Amino acid sequence: MIVLKLGGSVITDKDRPETLDGDALERAADAVATALGEGGERLVIVHGGGSFGHHNASEHGITTTEGTRDAAAALDVHGAMKTLNQFVLGRLLERDVDAVPVHPFSTAHRDAEGDLVLPTGQIETLLADGFVPVLHGDMLANAAAGGGTGGDDTDGATVVSGDELVASLARDLEADRIGLCSTVPGVLDDEDAVIERITDYDAVESVLGASESTDVTGGMAAKVRALLELDAEASIFGLEELAAFLEGETVGTTID
Amino acid sequence: MIVLKLGGSVITDKDRPETLDGDALERAADAVATALGEGGERLVIVHGGGSFGHHNASEHGITTTEGTRDAAAALDVHGAMKTLNQFVLGRLLERDVDAVPVHPFSTAHRDAEGDLVLPTGQIETLLADGFVPVLHGDMLANAAAGGGTGGDDTDGATVVSGDELVASLARDLEADRIGLCSTVPGVLDDEDAVIERITDYDAVESVLGASESTDVTGGMAAKVRALLELDAEASIFGLEELAAFLEGETVGTTID
Repeated sequence: MIVLKLGGSVITDKDRPETLDGDALERAADAVATALGEGGERLVIVHGGGSFGHHNASEHGITTTEGTRDAAAALDVHGAMKTLNQFVLGRLLERDVDAVPVHPFSTAHRDAEGDLVLPTGQIETLLADGFVPVLHGDMLANAAAGGGTGGDDTDGATVVSGDELVASLARDLEADRIGLCSTVPGVLDDEDAVIERITDYDAVESVLGASESTDVTGGMAAKVRALLELDAEASIFGLEELAAFLEGETVGTTID
Repeated sequence: MIVLKLGGSVITDKDRPETLDGDALERAADAVATALGEGGERLVIVHGGGSFGHHNASEHGITTTEGTRDAAAALDVHGAMKTLNQFVLGRLLERDVDAVPVHPFSTAHRDAEGDLVLPTGQIETLLADGFVPVLHGDMLANAAAGGGTGGDDTDGATVVSGDELVASLARDLEADRIGLCSTVPGVLDDEDAVIERITDYDAVESVLGASESTDVTGGMAAKVRALLELDAEASIFGLEELAAFLEGETVGTTID
């Protein structure tokens, strides 16, 4: 079983609000359709927001820890992510991939400690029925913020990133492989060469900067840290390597 | 805590595909907004499909037990229900009700015995955050049909009715009251008078016929049977009694 993240920056133009990168999404959908057509590989897809969602969240001051109790604000972000999800599903369905949406806001929440609780019974059953569940960064009801830190401004629904969902899914579904399809060909060292293998965060901390565009959910550093904590081997690679990754090849940066 | 079902036939014109009954929906939203404005009542809303969803399901031959492995067919039904859900949310948001969607296809499934498994952590957290979760009849991944009875035609995603969701939510959230807002003022006897109280199915079986329009999810008989199995007291009433029900009055038919 593979958990595949399609980076929001890959499938959208991250610097222009609500703008799809149609060509990139088509290429990603082609690679997925080819891989699923060839074998019985089980696949769960998670996509980020890119220019859908991040801008809306910023406008409302909503982050992964700063929440809102205003349904209209929450639905602004949620609705933008559903719109992008529709595009992703559409491109996959056109290629006979039986993709169905799993909207995190409908199923997951943060508990009193702020930890993500994401049920997986529906995802396992969708997989068993032959579907390809497609999740995305989203809003989440949050039991934590109000209790711990007090104040209405930190209460209510908060953001969950695609990366956080990937980590949770990979753990709970016992994924064999995790793929993060990114705008870069891997984690780059300070001479912009792809680092082949990362097994320790401290060794690469100095070269991991912040994401350049608006991103409420953290950049490459957060991705690497989260992936190092997982049992399954993870790969970070560019779109041109997606087909090879899905065929089982070692591509980009391997995090283990 | 109240679980309120808004019947699909109440808020849509059930005989014309994908046609909203805008006036009825506005009146329902008014009653909900007034009740929530007055006190701190916690409310979970479930709406049926009416003319959204039932027709699509019929076209594809999908029922609560006959499923599909075709994502496009499943999304036809799911998409119709989301469209109706958007209308319901819109009318509530206009009245400052912090309504948010909980799409069952994203969170629930049927287990190997065909029983509905609906996680409620996200719903409890949404309620604690001050939101009004709005669920709806939908599609569900199904672990049962293929295993038990064999054959591809009974495998895949099946329909879940709003009534089935209401029963599950009322049980798991330990609802104080259950309200079914219907097109009729209650369960009618054979002279069309409202039966005030039902405590035993056999006593009313002879007067409970099938629903007149296309309804893949069962009519009044199924509703009454399911409600009799619950601990909480349930009421079946017409739209004109919704405000009174939400204020705590005894209206329509009480099922206990």
